[in-house]
Amino acid sequence: MSHLTIIEQLDDPEEARQSGRKKIEWARQHMPIMTAVAEEFGAEKPLDGEVIAMAMHVEAKTAVLTEVLAEAGAEVAITGCNPLSTHDDVSAALDANDAITSYAKREVDEEEYYAAIQATLEHDPTVTVDDGGDLVMAIHEDYPELIDSIVGGCEETTTGVHRLRAMDDDGALRYPMFAVNDTPMKRLFDNVHGTGEASLSNIAMTTNLSFAGKTVVVAGYGYCGKGVAMKAKGQNAHVVVTEVEPRSALEAHMEGYEVCPMAEAAEKGDIFVTTTGNRDVIVEEHFERMADGVVLANAGHFNVEINLDELDDLAVSRREVRDGVEEFELDDGRRINVLADGRLVNLASPVAMGHPVEVMDQSFGIQAVCVREMVENGDAYDAGVHDVPDDLDREVAEIKLAAEGVEFDGLSDEQVEYMGSWQHGT
Amino acid sequence: MSHLTIIEQLDDPEEARQSGRKKIEWARQHMPIMTAVAEEFGAEKPLDGEVIAMAMHVEAKTAVLTEVLAEAGAEVAITGCNPLSTHDDVSAALDANDAITSYAKREVDEEEYYAAIQATLEHDPTVTVDDGGDLVMAIHEDYPELIDSIVGGCEETTTGVHRLRAMDDDGALRYPMFAVNDTPMKRLFDNVHGTGEASLSNIAMTTNLSFAGKTVVVAGYGYCGKGVAMKAKGQNAHVVVTEVEPRSALEAHMEGYEVCPMAEAAEKGDIFVTTTGNRDVIVEEHFERMADGVVLANAGHFNVEINLDELDDLAVSRREVRDGVEEFELDDGRRINVLADGRLVNLASPVAMGHPVEVMDQSFGIQAVCVREMVENGDAYDAGVHDVPDDLDREVAEIKLAAEGVEFDGLSDEQVEYMGSWQHGT
Amino acid sequence: MSHLTIIEQLDDPEEARQSGRKKIEWARQHMPIMTAVAEEFGAEKPLDGEVIAMAMHVEAKTAVLTEVLAEAGAEVAITGCNPLSTHDDVSAALDANDAITSYAKREVDEEEYYAAIQATLEHDPTVTVDDGGDLVMAIHEDYPELIDSIVGGCEETTTGVHRLRAMDDDGALRYPMFAVNDTPMKRLFDNVHGTGEASLSNIAMTTNLSFAGKTVVVAGYGYCGKGVAMKAKGQNAHVVVTEVEPRSALEAHMEGYEVCPMAEAAEKGDIFVTTTGNRDVIVEEHFERMADGVVLANAGHFNVEINLDELDDLAVSRREVRDGVEEFELDDGRRINVLADGRLVNLASPVAMGHPVEVMDQSFGIQAVCVREMVENGDAYDAGVHDVPDDLDREVAEIKLAAEGVEFDGLSDEQVEYMGSWQHGT
Amino acid sequence: MSHLTIIEQLDDPEEARQSGRKKIEWARQHMPIMTAVAEEFGAEKPLDGEVIAMAMHVEAKTAVLTEVLAEAGAEVAITGCNPLSTHDDVSAALDANDAITSYAKREVDEEEYYAAIQATLEHDPTVTVDDGGDLVMAIHEDYPELIDSIVGGCEETTTGVHRLRAMDDDGALRYPMFAVNDTPMKRLFDNVHGTGEASLSNIAMTTNLSFAGKTVVVAGYGYCGKGVAMKAKGQNAHVVVTEVEPRSALEAHMEGYEVCPMAEAAEKGDIFVTTTGNRDVIVEEHFERMADGVVLANAGHFNVEINLDELDDLAVSRREVRDGVEEFELDDGRRINVLADGRLVNLASPVAMGHPVEVMDQSFGIQAVCVREMVENGDAYDAGVHDVPDDLDREVAEIKLAAEGVEFDGLSDEQVEYMGSWQHGT
Repeated sequence: MSHLTIIEQLDDPEEARQSGRKKIEWARQHMPIMTAVAEEFGAEKPLDGEVIAMAMHVEAKTAVLTEVLAEAGAEVAITGCNPLSTHDDVSAALDANDAITSYAKREVDEEEYYAAIQATLEHDPTVTVDDGGDLVMAIHEDYPELIDSIVGGCEETTTGVHRLRAMDDDGALRYPMFAVNDTPMKRLFDNVHGTGEASLSNIAMTTNLSFAGKTVVVAGYGYCGKGVAMKAKGQNAHVVVTEVEPRSALEAHMEGYEVCPMAEAAEKGDIFVTTTGNRDVIVEEHFERMADGVVLANAGHFNVEINLDELDDLAVSRREVRDGVEEFELDDGRRINVLADGRLVNLASPVAMGHPVEVMDQSFGIQAVCVREMVENGDAYDAGVHDVPDDLDREVAEIKLAAEGVEFDGLSDEQVEYMGSWQHGT
Repeated sequence: MSHLTIIEQLDDPEEARQSGRKKIEWARQHMPIMTAVAEEFGAEKPLDGEVIAMAMHVEAKTAVLTEVLAEAGAEVAITGCNPLSTHDDVSAALDANDAITSYAKREVDEEEYYAAIQATLEHDPTVTVDDGGDLVMAIHEDYPELIDSIVGGCEETTTGVHRLRAMDDDGALRYPMFAVNDTPMKRLFDNVHGTGEASLSNIAMTTNLSFAGKTVVVAGYGYCGKGVAMKAKGQNAHVVVTEVEPRSALEAHMEGYEVCPMAEAAEKGDIFVTTTGNRDVIVEEHFERMADGVVLANAGHFNVEINLDELDDLAVSRREVRDGVEEFELDDGRRINVLADGRLVNLASPVAMGHPVEVMDQSFGIQAVCVREMVENGDAYDAGVHDVPDDLDREVAEIKLAAEGVEFDGLSDEQVEYMGSWQHGT
Repeated sequence: MSHLTIIEQLDDPEEARQSGRKKIEWARQHMPIMTAVAEEFGAEKPLDGEVIAMAMHVEAKTAVLTEVLAEAGAEVAITGCNPLSTHDDVSAALDANDAITSYAKREVDEEEYYAAIQATLEHDPTVTVDDGGDLVMAIHEDYPELIDSIVGGCEETTTGVHRLRAMDDDGALRYPMFAVNDTPMKRLFDNVHGTGEASLSNIAMTTNLSFAGKTVVVAGYGYCGKGVAMKAKGQNAHVVVTEVEPRSALEAHMEGYEVCPMAEAAEKGDIFVTTTGNRDVIVEEHFERMADGVVLANAGHFNVEINLDELDDLAVSRREVRDGVEEFELDDGRRINVLADGRLVNLASPVAMGHPVEVMDQSFGIQAVCVREMVENGDAYDAGVHDVPDDLDREVAEIKLAAEGVEFDGLSDEQVEYMGSWQHGT
Repeated sequence: MSHLTIIEQLDDPEEARQSGRKKIEWARQHMPIMTAVAEEFGAEKPLDGEVIAMAMHVEAKTAVLTEVLAEAGAEVAITGCNPLSTHDDVSAALDANDAITSYAKREVDEEEYYAAIQATLEHDPTVTVDDGGDLVMAIHEDYPELIDSIVGGCEETTTGVHRLRAMDDDGALRYPMFAVNDTPMKRLFDNVHGTGEASLSNIAMTTNLSFAGKTVVVAGYGYCGKGVAMKAKGQNAHVVVTEVEPRSALEAHMEGYEVCPMAEAAEKGDIFVTTTGNRDVIVEEHFERMADGVVLANAGHFNVEINLDELDDLAVSRREVRDGVEEFELDDGRRINVLADGRLVNLASPVAMGHPVEVMDQSFGIQAVCVREMVENGDAYDAGVHDVPDDLDREVAEIKLAAEGVEFDGLSDEQVEYMGSWQHGT
């Protein structure tokens, strides 16, 4: 294989491996769902003989999923899904696992990034696990010969599902994919709580600024936006929401948030967080209205939400003023600070460790049972995007509640009968 | 017609009419959506020639919907959907309208209740507007001959939709019904904010008790339960949630609420609010564990959630200790206080005025455009339960935002294109 | 005695007495502190031989305090401290108690109001219990001969303490008064939670409006204002705070509230709640900027915060549009709705039951032990305003925690020693 | 001088200086109060000729205070107030300033720590600025000859003020000290918002764990505890509070938190944060009840709150599992994770940057005007602990509001007169 694995690229792979191993162990200790799944998968080996290609943010939690899939019998080839989000030590620790090959490396350029994706495909995968859709894209564009032997795949993110659905609408998606992002479990916990908490703690630790009394502008009031807005309010920020969908705008308004167009919010905000999944959410006309010293961060998948090209055109100078903070100075002296190059702030900031461990535990629990489902029942799914079967999602919730020691009620026969009946009156 | 209208039943109908008229005027002033809809409907008369039967909580806000439908050209016959929730004065004010006949009266017995429902059907309705499904039931059971001329109907509540779906699954629903309850607008605003706020303020005003420092047990974490839990937390209560669905239980747990089975919650709670839509949520084994002086209220549609028969069997005495509060004394001296006979507390408590005006404005805005849709395009819908078309729901959201002076962003062509594309990379 | 007691003034005193008795019983059941205090006072009779004059809001909770003081051996004469806040039935139930005479009656005019205050003083009180300071005023102005035999008194409210301190600064206060309002217990629980919750539930139930999505302007960010703001935010309102003290303004800003002058807030608000204790908080220049349909309510002690004279001058008409809601129509058609004549909305609205039971339980627990303290150790206090001794306040907190079943930690000897030491290093 | 300055101790002082300078510049840009103060002090040189000794957490924000005092004309000698909290690069940047000597270095042992404190005293200070009281201790114990020429000092923390008051009560404090910690500005903003936000973001970033759904035990419900509890609730944690003071316990209970003794909380918690200022808050009996995997952090000044000696005695092994996380394994396999050696987590964790910039801006604004006050009016203050004069505190609030663009109301003459009067009736 022409592309080098991470261990082949490092100066001191052993030191990296040990550091990465410690991180993976910590994560696994705090991932009760994966621990329960690993126990079952390790005993039953449901993925025996499968080859799994993964393109994900390679850090400690993802590594646990990767290893659990390997423990289930699969051979795994993994790379990053973002040029800045890989932890090299974790990547090395994975690569040191006999059943796993890791090509993920931090700060690769675009060519290296796509070469690594292709390297995973040279393993002839039968299952793909994607975070953003780059693997599915590459297969359809460059490795169509793999499609026949692929039983199916999973997609982790809103953005990736969005791309897959667009592809599916065009009739272009040629194998079945689970939209893991769209499960209740994933949306509520990962997007709301995971993105919400991690975005804010990364902004806080990168800037040393606080939220109390600040005006935080949240662009987009989907699940991620709701999380960021709720958690920012919980830190005593004054939250302003921008939206393009009237019902989402109304929902934010009814929650008590200030809602206005970005052109107006630009003048009010101290800190801006984009969560829309769309491009050009903050552009020239907004930069022009912002106050001196504002902080801009992106919590959406791609770095297209804040238009840095337009900001660069406006700026008379740009420089790094802190690790992970680039200051653009405008000709009137105003300074606009952009975190993590406008990339996903909770994955690309210098202090970033990604989403919290437990949140990813839930999300990856679903991934694991979805991969098992594709392997065991892939024939049952046509090419295209599929919702995660309700019972798989429910299974993971039950594992989690059991792990947390939370009990809940059952339904009596009379109650089941009542729920299904329609003759009862007032 | 054998059944008497409300005006025929009152001692002083004119005084009632004036009192009701004042209430309706206040409501209409604070219903900007209905005001906008009335303007359009009054000009265009889209319901000309239709006969609408309604079974709803007859109070000021519903009266505004009723009158707007009449202003659109329809003849309307209305009755209550709950034996305790009618405001006689509002009913009288409606009945005094030439285009409207009202049979709704407070504190009717079961026989009178159903007689009034039948009376509305004697008007040969072409459209039905239901809150709980009693009208649809009565038509299918007792007036099947009406079905051919009915173009369709709307159902307001979770419970009613539940009944209709069960009926539909049995192939028994013979005309098209919009599940108004299931729209984003309805669920989020009416259920979450409406039920949430109104349940608590009714409990507070009926008992003169406060929430700060109290343990409030919320049974059910659907939309209504979320609203009650969120608002109770917002009044500094300690909130305990009970659930039967693991993902809802987990969602509540992740929000920070204590989650446990009712058998355990029964020992912890000071105030209990049921929101499940199911029966027997609080039963004998729970009463036996409750502390002296607890308060029980129901925010679900039917009075089956708290099993009062079992409580009565346990009690050595029962008496009204305040308006709307019945105290059951157990043989060990513990006292259990039940509000509003276990009926929907925000509609049946002595101080009850139902959901807040603005919340019903949103809900009834959807009802109004749905009735128009059934009249104009009823042919397009098969017999069965239908989701409200997305554009109608969106239309009402836009009316509301405009009325509140809230502006929001649009999408550029590039953004629309981006949202629909799938070739963009990392 | 020339002034009639309440029973002498009622048409059907027995019916009133029974209704009032039921209300008092309900309150007492939910007042665990008073229950514990009553047990002790009833056994020890610490107030034997004392005569207590009280001017308070005469409703069920106050009645419990009144009766507990009587059970402790005192003769009590009581009247209202607000022309609109008396519940006649409760007043009648008290008056029927042999040890108590009640002159309190709802909707008295100014002359009757002050005559009733004087009537209580004709009983030659040795202790006074005030809510607003009217009793102390009347004694100093009209009954100075009583001062020598008065051992001391208690004042319940911020406003009353304010008046007493001003009087004390002038050297005009001639007997010792406990500033019950200023205790941690009173301020935090009564002002923050009591006023906060009760103001909002009264506004909700008087208007049938909701808070979600509304802009609520809170004038004043003292303890009452904090409570109203926090609870309104907890109901998903967008809260705007106005202040005159820069540190309080900054505190509100740092909590995440919008802070601005009233002239600006007037344009933003849907609902206004005044809590300042000062006059002319909302005046002509503010009425002129308000939107059509705004709701104005006062949660401060006196009806001077909203300048109704100026509003009346601006209005072309005024009429009652709901019980407790007066609409002022301006010449440009805008309507301004004032609740409860601008009097304390949680005491004077038509549905008002005053502060929640448990909150008053705490407040009156302090009153009770303070009255005992004045009787037992009044000599120890000079004429003037005194803080409640810390141990009395703490005693009541411990009673409350015990009643709620809440345990807390003690300090070890080492910890006590550490807290008192200063030689420990880093 | 025998003790080496930081620059004399570093291998590459120039690199350190540049890194530190960038951090200081970022901080100063986000400290509008210090910017305004610096403008005034730089012009008027109120500290000309003074020598200031400082013992504080030496990082970017403190550096801004240090430089502003130097710009005001003073010579400044500074060292750390905690062996782990110094940022060497910031210390170097300060030391490079001609008017400033810095002895602060990270990870010094106890001997070096106290030697550095003594080194600052060799500069013969006339003013002391303390954070924990070590400077005042050292002067009274080892450099009493300095006392006559010292005009006064400031103390930043609760703990330090506590030590000073104990000293004052013993008659042992021999020069005037301002209790900066006790001002409304300091307590509310620094303790509540600063400690609250920074503790949680440091815990999140050190552990990669989240708060949603976690049980967070907060020991102590003073200002710091309130901040931690409020912000943890705002991140959807379930919060349990422990207290030793009944009124504080009751306050937490009334806010809706679960309150119980630590022995009970130990069994419930996932994450523990101590904020009491006392020793032995978490000890052997608590470790024995904790679940596997709990995380312990301290937000109080000294590392005495979690008794690590007792934990070490219980443990069969201890090892670092992540940067800043030490795992103690007990003999039954349970693992207890302690952050930052039980030192102040927001200052001593590996990712720590201390309190947020703006919060320290407020706190240091007060410090600056207090130092000016001591120099200008020190004669007016006796030896002992003094509250910060109200007008200084207010002055800083006004500067902050002006910088944030927040306007507030003034009082009319009539309102001032009303507030001071006492003849107004009901």
